[in-house]
Amino acid sequence: MAQKPSIPKGTRDFSPSEMVRRNYIFNTIKDVFRLYGFQPIETPAMENLSTLMGKYGEEGDKLLFKILNSGDFISKVPQEMLDEKNSNKLTTKLSEKGLRYDLTVPFARYVVQYRNDIAFPFKRYQIQPVWRADRPQKGRYREFYQCDVDVIGSNSLLNEVELVQIIDEVFQRLGINTTVKINNRKILAGIAEAIDEADRMVDITVAIDKLDKIGLEKVNAEMLDKGISQDAVDKLQPILKLEGNTVEKLAQIETVIGGTEIGAKGIAEMRTMFAYLQNIELNTTVELDLTLARGLNYYTGAIFEVKSNDVQIGSICGGGRYDDLTGIFGMPDVSGVGVSFGAERIYDVLVQLDAFPEESLETTKALFVNFGEKEEAYCLPILAQLRKNGINAEIFPESAKMKKQMTYANRKEIAYVILAGDNEIAAQKFTLKNMETGEQQIVDSQELINILK
Amino acid sequence: MAQKPSIPKGTRDFSPSEMVRRNYIFNTIKDVFRLYGFQPIETPAMENLSTLMGKYGEEGDKLLFKILNSGDFISKVPQEMLDEKNSNKLTTKLSEKGLRYDLTVPFARYVVQYRNDIAFPFKRYQIQPVWRADRPQKGRYREFYQCDVDVIGSNSLLNEVELVQIIDEVFQRLGINTTVKINNRKILAGIAEAIDEADRMVDITVAIDKLDKIGLEKVNAEMLDKGISQDAVDKLQPILKLEGNTVEKLAQIETVIGGTEIGAKGIAEMRTMFAYLQNIELNTTVELDLTLARGLNYYTGAIFEVKSNDVQIGSICGGGRYDDLTGIFGMPDVSGVGVSFGAERIYDVLVQLDAFPEESLETTKALFVNFGEKEEAYCLPILAQLRKNGINAEIFPESAKMKKQMTYANRKEIAYVILAGDNEIAAQKFTLKNMETGEQQIVDSQELINILK
Repeated sequence: MAQKPSIPKGTRDFSPSEMVRRNYIFNTIKDVFRLYGFQPIETPAMENLSTLMGKYGEEGDKLLFKILNSGDFISKVPQEMLDEKNSNKLTTKLSEKGLRYDLTVPFARYVVQYRNDIAFPFKRYQIQPVWRADRPQKGRYREFYQCDVDVIGSNSLLNEVELVQIIDEVFQRLGINTTVKINNRKILAGIAEAIDEADRMVDITVAIDKLDKIGLEKVNAEMLDKGISQDAVDKLQPILKLEGNTVEKLAQIETVIGGTEIGAKGIAEMRTMFAYLQNIELNTTVELDLTLARGLNYYTGAIFEVKSNDVQIGSICGGGRYDDLTGIFGMPDVSGVGVSFGAERIYDVLVQLDAFPEESLETTKALFVNFGEKEEAYCLPILAQLRKNGINAEIFPESAKMKKQMTYANRKEIAYVILAGDNEIAAQKFTLKNMETGEQQIVDSQELINILK
Repeated sequence: MAQKPSIPKGTRDFSPSEMVRRNYIFNTIKDVFRLYGFQPIETPAMENLSTLMGKYGEEGDKLLFKILNSGDFISKVPQEMLDEKNSNKLTTKLSEKGLRYDLTVPFARYVVQYRNDIAFPFKRYQIQPVWRADRPQKGRYREFYQCDVDVIGSNSLLNEVELVQIIDEVFQRLGINTTVKINNRKILAGIAEAIDEADRMVDITVAIDKLDKIGLEKVNAEMLDKGISQDAVDKLQPILKLEGNTVEKLAQIETVIGGTEIGAKGIAEMRTMFAYLQNIELNTTVELDLTLARGLNYYTGAIFEVKSNDVQIGSICGGGRYDDLTGIFGMPDVSGVGVSFGAERIYDVLVQLDAFPEESLETTKALFVNFGEKEEAYCLPILAQLRKNGINAEIFPESAKMKKQMTYANRKEIAYVILAGDNEIAAQKFTLKNMETGEQQIVDSQELINILK
């Protein structure tokens, strides 16, 4: 019967000390979401494959975890399909459900399904795991949490601004210095149009996105390589070399793209957003970054990306405005904007900064050492008192060796140990030991409560 | 492209108002768990099928949701197996992973896998969804949360006692009057032995378990029907008709089973537990109930079941002592005890009692009505002030029609609406409307904060 137990590759168990840290992150984020009027929803782990397939591209379809149909599934597969042995085709006969791949498509499905019950604009957050059959590697898992916050059903740019405020507040509370980079898909479209390469916008912006990584020359070469005209690449140069503050940058961009309808609209949106942001106290640095081109096929307005200033790691939060999330489910023309917090990376940043606050990691505050029946009976009423006062406390459940009990306290990082033997009982006192400093003091029950509270 | 969106049968979406209620339950339970020194863990949704299969009986194996292997899975199935078309056998070739069926087996796997890192006794709680391919029906879902709390690696009966305290504290906080029924597997074994039907214990206890439902006569008939001797059934009668308080009942049982080793041990365990419980203030009623025989193949000592006194519904919490949970994974002789809270039923009880406290359901406290640019600019700084004071507040993101904004506030059950037009701006005031009473008052910003805080 015995087997060496393990878990599927790319998945993880979370120990108590990891859970406490993860909960600190999630609770901080949730508190801020609620402060801004966002409400939680949850969707099932399994969605119908008809909901999921075709939403993440061909590659995404392959990376979906699919649930094998229950019962006598094979009898429902036509013989000729079995003979053909095409796994892709067979999947449609063997499976009707898949695990969610992200929170965005289930959210779109949710909005359409409950459109008559929802109070729009719908401000929702959702923190749940997602599953992807990706090749596992450092920092990439097959099960991981996403942490999304979106407003759907409102075109107002105030939503974009509030998302920046939320980002600012979350990272301030977590003690992470950040820079929020903002771009606008309409500006990118305006650029493509202004240089007469309107239908090449994706190529151009993919190239721009590489500016930081490969430098200006290679970006230019790549664009030429992809068949973008020399003339267009020349026209683009001023935009790749922008300088100054945001107002100045926007003015420079406007000289190139102001003549296009979409470019002018993008400039106007950015000016409105930055005007709002100027009146708000922020800890984070907010900057326009034209090289930001994430999720192009998807976003239609503002694009956000958040970087830690002190730790070298990819973006720790990102998102943007999308104008047709729910169209795929038959509800067109509903605009939304949202961001997703990268909880796994935020965890890594906090570890590297050693920035988990001590009080957030505390689980049990005090342990009563168990010396035997009589001593236990002396301790139980005061243990109950501590708990009544909201103090997380426990008693070792049996009179094990002192060393075992102290090891237990240490491993569990319990702050205080309470000892009561014959002397303490005679004097109606307790010995309270601070496990960090090693200091001991004799206290009565009221003092005990006061110190631990 | 359009499709009518839906979710797989037996699964559910949770709307904001359901989430708030569910979180209230989970948070209450977690707070109590922590108060007693329990720590959270989480395990992956997917486990290797080798971990799950054979742990829940033949029926359980069928009810496991299995994940279809990724990639070209069909090429790995031998031709003769395809020809045979046996879905059960094929499953082993098409799937290596399954969704967890409960939290108990993953917990056992966890304990064995990390045995060297864990501080024993290990007091853990775990609140995560589980999946079962059961036929969906009222109150039975294919995805539902379990909420387990266990101590593993300690034989002390103090653990059983603390679990009763936890149950008591949780339901007191939730405002649910309960009865905790306690039995002991060793007493049941002692009974079977004392009436010379030691190897028929399962049949006997299954029959006893039906006492409430079908009555004494039918239980007797059923036992005879199953081949238990008339003599044995006769000997059993006094035990089926026990009366008096717990101490009296235990004394009566002892006269029948005290001569058996296991029976005497069961009596002693129960006496110890009830002696502890007598010294503890409890709201719940605790009673010995010999008809309680849940999970017999599994439990080895105490058995618990909790009923709501005011709502007719199955048990809302249950569990017991098990002596060999980790043996299946090669780590024998580790005793544990735990209970599982039935969050779904607790939810139903609270709905029926209308016992969700109002403050637990509050999401956004105040909404600023948006009358336009100028008014919005006047409101934003005080909105920021409210949030700085920890008040969940929002502004409608655009100057929509008044009716739309008030409908929004109503649907979201926002307690207060704040209005600021020309008059308010001129006077540097705000009109605060209580949405429940309809009352309005004119206040300045400091009063606004004080009222909402």
